Amino acid sequence: MNVTLLAGGVGGARLAHGLDLALGAQSLTVVVNVGDDTRLHGLDISPDIDTVVYTLAGLNDEDRGWGLRGESYATLAALRDLGEDTWFMLGDRDLATHIVRTARLRRGETLSAVTAELARSMGVRPHVVPATDDHLATFVDTPSGRLGFQEYFVGRQHADAVLGLHFEGADAARPAPGVLDALAAELVVLAPSNPFLSIEPLLAVRGVREALVAAPGRRVAVSPIVGGQAIKGPAAQILETLGHEVSALGVARIYADLVDVMVIDERDADLAGPVADLGLTVHVTDTVMGGPPGRERLARELLALA
Amino acid sequence: MNVTLLAGGVGGARLAHGLDLALGAQSLTVVVNVGDDTRLHGLDISPDIDTVVYTLAGLNDEDRGWGLRGESYATLAALRDLGEDTWFMLGDRDLATHIVRTARLRRGETLSAVTAELARSMGVRPHVVPATDDHLATFVDTPSGRLGFQEYFVGRQHADAVLGLHFEGADAARPAPGVLDALAAELVVLAPSNPFLSIEPLLAVRGVREALVAAPGRRVAVSPIVGGQAIKGPAAQILETLGHEVSALGVARIYADLVDVMVIDERDADLAGPVADLGLTVHVTDTVMGGPPGRERLARELLALA
Repeated sequence: MNVTLLAGGVGGARLAHGLDLALGAQSLTVVVNVGDDTRLHGLDISPDIDTVVYTLAGLNDEDRGWGLRGESYATLAALRDLGEDTWFMLGDRDLATHIVRTARLRRGETLSAVTAELARSMGVRPHVVPATDDHLATFVDTPSGRLGFQEYFVGRQHADAVLGLHFEGADAARPAPGVLDALAAELVVLAPSNPFLSIEPLLAVRGVREALVAAPGRRVAVSPIVGGQAIKGPAAQILETLGHEVSALGVARIYADLVDVMVIDERDADLAGPVADLGLTVHVTDTVMGGPPGRERLARELLALA
Repeated sequence: MNVTLLAGGVGGARLAHGLDLALGAQSLTVVVNVGDDTRLHGLDISPDIDTVVYTLAGLNDEDRGWGLRGESYATLAALRDLGEDTWFMLGDRDLATHIVRTARLRRGETLSAVTAELARSMGVRPHVVPATDDHLATFVDTPSGRLGFQEYFVGRQHADAVLGLHFEGADAARPAPGVLDALAAELVVLAPSNPFLSIEPLLAVRGVREALVAAPGRRVAVSPIVGGQAIKGPAAQILETLGHEVSALGVARIYADLVDVMVIDERDADLAGPVADLGLTVHVTDTVMGGPPGRERLARELLALA
């Protein structure tokens, strides 16, 4: 079976890991958001791609949710001593990824080629593909004005109310090689990532939303909202400030035209009826993955839906 | 008094340190070789500049002679895991210097501007100036062919016989701002650096040799050869393969048209007569500096020569 996962950071990475465990040698493609990508200290940083790759490689810091396990921060401390702004945590080992990525991009390689090489170096089996090799940058409109994504998310710790989103370059960005093919998989899963910050910029790439609408396989979304709260990050606040219901039903309404099946948490079982009324098949289960066993269990349930 | 030092790596850095200690608030300019500069992992690396700056900042590793004290190598280990060639040792803190330099050069700043900023960040008082902001790269002709400098020096541990030197870009390279002015100082010192690998590429920059020949101040060279051997590095072998006498006299012959005074070690006192016969004033002293007290002592003797 061919499976494709559309993913942002942590939630997407965990489900990618679960699907990899469940699928074994079968083909998994993870299409990853690049709207969070940034340049710091002259280095090209792709936080969502790295979270997915590190998690699939078993190298990620599970407790913290980002970065590598057992990191040190000697280079960052030295950058600070040199007067650099070091609000964005970059570990010594993580920096090697950014150094290699930056050098290869500067040599003219595409982000998708560099990502494939980095993933292979780390022993990752699934195909990890950026949504686009072109420029696409998420900006967040707030009462304090338009903020770059990392400024909003890390710099200001996503404390600002989100009034709107802007995906710079989206009109011109073409899907990276393999993205449209991947949407023709037997199962396409929208990870329990932030619908606005992770999935939306991915769908904003030219032709991706259309390809998902027309996808021939089974399309399943997992709600990132459980019991009216986000597992992680600002999804709940953004649903609210953008005028959506802060619930799995609110998420289902956003995804109603894009998927066949909505997976909601058992704590939200009372929403199964209203979600079904949107014309969606509803699957109620424990969606909070935690460690590898929980990830694999959820992944197997998703595979059974296809 | 204004003093200018022409310097390569370790020997130049130690004498720069001594002159800084001896001069106090008086003006010292260190013009540094850039022929060793290289790009590794996409990062722009200036080994001689960094050795000088780190030594003047008191941050260098005295035992090893290069790099920073108390370094860790987490990023380098991760680069190796990603399949990068890691024969050139780059510490975690040292990498911060290269990351900042590379980012600023890519933004269009000159190497001299970046060097001044880095030196200031590290609390360095003397002006540290690259010989040129333009491209100048030392290549070494050996029985195995022409090698890039770092391949010869670090990669193959300067084991190849040196048959000739080539300074790529020297014809077009212009002196960095301040270099020609610095040669008009009351005292100009050629550090006990390698005459071929450190001083020669510096003099190869357009107009520098001519400015030194015409310099109005006192010009003093310190022999890097003591008792027929180099304090450090391949200077003795290169003197031999290029057909020079392997002694302070051999060095004096190379510098005879460029300086007024030759400083030779007391172990070479018997060469004082032959060096004087070249038309040079000879100063015989202990030229092996070792730690800060020895550096300051030698520096004070040089200042007295002016």
